[in-house]
Amino acid sequence: MFIIADRINGMFKDVNEAIQNRDAAAIQSLARQLLAGGATALDINSGRKVQDPQGALLWLAETIREVTDAPLSIDTAKPEIMKAVVRRVPGKKIVNSTKADPEMAMEYIALAVENDAALIGLTIDVDGVPGNLEKRVELGAQLIALASDAGLSMDRLFVDPIMLPVKVNSQNPLHCLQAVAQLKAFCDPPPHLLLGLSNVSDGCPCTSLIDRTYVAMAIAHGLDAVFMDTRDTELVDSVVTAELLLGKMVYCDSFLEAARQAKA
Amino acid sequence: MFIIADRINGMFKDVNEAIQNRDAAAIQSLARQLLAGGATALDINSGRKVQDPQGALLWLAETIREVTDAPLSIDTAKPEIMKAVVRRVPGKKIVNSTKADPEMAMEYIALAVENDAALIGLTIDVDGVPGNLEKRVELGAQLIALASDAGLSMDRLFVDPIMLPVKVNSQNPLHCLQAVAQLKAFCDPPPHLLLGLSNVSDGCPCTSLIDRTYVAMAIAHGLDAVFMDTRDTELVDSVVTAELLLGKMVYCDSFLEAARQAKA
Repeated sequence: MFIIADRINGMFKDVNEAIQNRDAAAIQSLARQLLAGGATALDINSGRKVQDPQGALLWLAETIREVTDAPLSIDTAKPEIMKAVVRRVPGKKIVNSTKADPEMAMEYIALAVENDAALIGLTIDVDGVPGNLEKRVELGAQLIALASDAGLSMDRLFVDPIMLPVKVNSQNPLHCLQAVAQLKAFCDPPPHLLLGLSNVSDGCPCTSLIDRTYVAMAIAHGLDAVFMDTRDTELVDSVVTAELLLGKMVYCDSFLEAARQAKA
Repeated sequence: MFIIADRINGMFKDVNEAIQNRDAAAIQSLARQLLAGGATALDINSGRKVQDPQGALLWLAETIREVTDAPLSIDTAKPEIMKAVVRRVPGKKIVNSTKADPEMAMEYIALAVENDAALIGLTIDVDGVPGNLEKRVELGAQLIALASDAGLSMDRLFVDPIMLPVKVNSQNPLHCLQAVAQLKAFCDPPPHLLLGLSNVSDGCPCTSLIDRTYVAMAIAHGLDAVFMDTRDTELVDSVVTAELLLGKMVYCDSFLEAARQAKA
């Protein structure tokens, strides 16, 4: 399971303060916690409250690179910042993200190929997030085709069929499961299938129960990458247990610890 | 979700004592707890330690029937006891169980049809529990075909692809998921697909985590019936949440309570 920890984000007060103060120790400590919790990669997002988002992103990348070689997921909605930053982030990196709009997708795929980076592609087009399963799969398939044409291998493409809160749309979690299964079967080798887990329970009183339950269902449908806060031990336990129950590791009584050690 | 509570079983000390003492209040209290926890049906098994298992089963059935109309799952491995008891159990009932051996299966299917009962069919033949997915599906398909031929409708057939502990066989939980999905797609309407949940974690230190995770994965694959102890609130919460996330109910903040009230 490719777990991208999504907590190093300036929308959180502690991270915003650390960015403003260029407090490297705070960011490095958080990065270490997220990795110890089971993160494969770390998302970095400067948030909207900083004056120099490009400088902040670069500082985050360089600061974290001092303590880990884990892939960094460069998270910005601004193409000019993405282009400037991706070239300067050392080591493994993920471009987060492009929409399925062909012009934008082709530009971002080229950017990923040029910079030896992976790419997250969202099943969103000019009309926004699709309201049905068919359009999600169509946009995912379009991302796969564009990436293949441009030489981005499937192990470097993460297709995200966009989770909406169950509170907003009771059918969306099912559509995402089905989109994951269909896009996983669309080509061989398949791309990674990714979801932003916490979105499913956004606004609900029992977020932990919903997230834990959904991630197991999604992994059973072929999800192999996820955005989550890896400091949530119960949630990571669910991910590890779901992988065990799919036969992806041999059982031992200490399988939870063994899985975390294998990542570290 | 058709939840069969499997706690009224003489292998448990409290139930064995209640049977020996013909303590109706104890059995009725347990039955009410299981139903309040979310059970659709109640399994009854006299255990091996009673002198008159047939009399004990009948007493359990009559005792529980005084407090609920819920289906009773008559659980005995002895054909002569099953035949004697099933005719005398009042109300809705389930014959638990036949193997996929054709001779036994045809006899039990006829018994279910004659007595207006449902039937649980196990994917076990003379060689025991299949070691691979293909044989599980073949035996399940055979049960479906025999039931169809003999006029047992699919809503009265529960196919159980037999859960083995993950500790014993790391691939078995995956095989059961795949068997559930394949047998669910085998005919329309499909039979119920059933698993004995607690078997998956038998002998493991973190049974609750494994059971909660697996049941969500299995429901995502089409499982619609399960044996479990409905006094385990966390486990029932996982079942209800998995159904919510498949769009089987409309979200409300009190969906856990709403689902239990809908059953009661």
